[in-house]
Amino acid sequence: MSELRKDPLYDRWVIISMERGKRPGSLALRKVPETCPFCPGNEALTPPEITADREPGTNPNERGWMVRVFPNRFPALMVEGDLKREKPGLFERMRGIGAHEVVVETPEHNLPLEKLSEDQIQRVMRVYRDRIEDLHRDIRLKYVLVFKNWGDQAGASLVHSHSQIIATPIIPTNLKEELDSSLRYFRSHGTCICCDIISQDMKSGERIVHENQHFIARTAFASAFPFQVDIFPKAHSCSFTNISEEEISSFGHILQTILKKLNRVADTPPYNYVIHTAPNLAPREELWHTIEKDFHWHLELIPRLTRIAGFEWGTGFYINPVSPEEAAQQLREAVP
Amino acid sequence: MSELRKDPLYDRWVIISMERGKRPGSLALRKVPETCPFCPGNEALTPPEITADREPGTNPNERGWMVRVFPNRFPALMVEGDLKREKPGLFERMRGIGAHEVVVETPEHNLPLEKLSEDQIQRVMRVYRDRIEDLHRDIRLKYVLVFKNWGDQAGASLVHSHSQIIATPIIPTNLKEELDSSLRYFRSHGTCICCDIISQDMKSGERIVHENQHFIARTAFASAFPFQVDIFPKAHSCSFTNISEEEISSFGHILQTILKKLNRVADTPPYNYVIHTAPNLAPREELWHTIEKDFHWHLELIPRLTRIAGFEWGTGFYINPVSPEEAAQQLREAVP
Repeated sequence: MSELRKDPLYDRWVIISMERGKRPGSLALRKVPETCPFCPGNEALTPPEITADREPGTNPNERGWMVRVFPNRFPALMVEGDLKREKPGLFERMRGIGAHEVVVETPEHNLPLEKLSEDQIQRVMRVYRDRIEDLHRDIRLKYVLVFKNWGDQAGASLVHSHSQIIATPIIPTNLKEELDSSLRYFRSHGTCICCDIISQDMKSGERIVHENQHFIARTAFASAFPFQVDIFPKAHSCSFTNISEEEISSFGHILQTILKKLNRVADTPPYNYVIHTAPNLAPREELWHTIEKDFHWHLELIPRLTRIAGFEWGTGFYINPVSPEEAAQQLREAVP
Repeated sequence: MSELRKDPLYDRWVIISMERGKRPGSLALRKVPETCPFCPGNEALTPPEITADREPGTNPNERGWMVRVFPNRFPALMVEGDLKREKPGLFERMRGIGAHEVVVETPEHNLPLEKLSEDQIQRVMRVYRDRIEDLHRDIRLKYVLVFKNWGDQAGASLVHSHSQIIATPIIPTNLKEELDSSLRYFRSHGTCICCDIISQDMKSGERIVHENQHFIARTAFASAFPFQVDIFPKAHSCSFTNISEEEISSFGHILQTILKKLNRVADTPPYNYVIHTAPNLAPREELWHTIEKDFHWHLELIPRLTRIAGFEWGTGFYINPVSPEEAAQQLREAVP
């Protein structure tokens, strides 16, 4: 059983996962199975599926799926049990309650996300939306984090294209900061901070990478990482769960375009993306009564181009060697 | 000229360093010079030295030094000029004023820090102390960050053992959080948060790694990284600049011991360490009038054992696969 712990010196929760590798050697060297457990026909190699987008008439845990979701085999958090929040001395801890799921994005072993068909990427986005909605039914879970690690250097231990979902009983630090900033800004300006930033960015244009009917992709004025790109819906919306069918098509398209541009500019780099969406509003917390108006969901895409993240881990202090305007220009001009 | 920038969505400053590599290719592939610029005899290959601990009668920028300090050849920040703080629209920016220095810890090319003689490690620690003191004379500089990247994976582009110093006109995020937590705790308890944590940790003993006369090394209850170790002075002190000659000897000794234990347990891993010390108190800010009592300096040592830092970057949400108690036990039992 894993634990969530908090130190009084830092206002952040850490998952201490006892289930995972214990010896330092096993941390660096993860065994990659010879048979891909994400390929059709190998469904028995994964935990039983939670859901799948499959051809009519096919059975769970068999071939016939287009997108498949199952619990992580080495979960950082688990669904069973209660939180048992405790305060030993100066510390705080609770049991590692939550969910940790894998979303296999395609039956094809070697197909990266940006090469999925239009239909297929939309299926993946629908699965993201439906999983967030489903996990929000559990009011112990405050946040559902949808993310993707692509490439060994970005933390993906298997090559078959997949995303992950972690649902937690706490709000992850950076998300909490964004929620707090958005709320503060709304209270003093009466408008959404991201809507105002986007409108300012669109006027200058220098950090805009690409736009289509419903979405805009840009580099942030204070990007912490080179070639980091954020994708925002143009129409204000606090949650990915509100995405319409039309927006799903538009979102899939812009995400694939940005990845293709990035491949062109940065030679197919490893990357991570994270969807920043509203927390679970079911266990309604008072702070969030304006969240529909103050928070603006978006996707953050971080290519893994630098290794300088050493002391950044310890200080929260980032050095970005490429100006966001330069990065935007290179990406804007790249022909996918 | 680099810039410091802040986004209203995150309360953190980022250095946007235009001086450094611009093309994605040059970010990943850093050219390592064939001749080591840190070796004696090659002093002309570095910028002119700022200071050095050298044999009497030898000249600056020649052989004869034991520890040598000079500006980073590719500085993230530079000393000349004024800050020119501006607020373009919703954003904030200032010029990249500060200092970025390199401390070469030994004339010997292949000697890692933990193998330096007792005298030599003390020389390095004295140089750290003196550089912090000297940089504090510039009241534009709010914080002096002393850190070390060891090993390619930890961001060290050169193998010859060295540390770095970055002095900034802002307080790095994690340090600011620590300062804030320490102040808050002091206001409500009247005691130093770290003194109280250390005393609680010493009672249980389960996270203690090592101690000597003046220092204690332990894993934090909510360590974000496997085998992360913090070293605290036992006697309360807010700043590394207050370290006594006797404590310097004790500190050098415990730092080398911990590194040797880590090498034993984790097979000589790459690592980063950062000294968390009080900010520059010369431009005296009101918030810090209790800082001598509320803040406790320490060193944080982070071995680079996992690659899972992908989405952690985007979320501030950490999964540590080794419990701090397990890590402490393995390190405690390791014979250097």
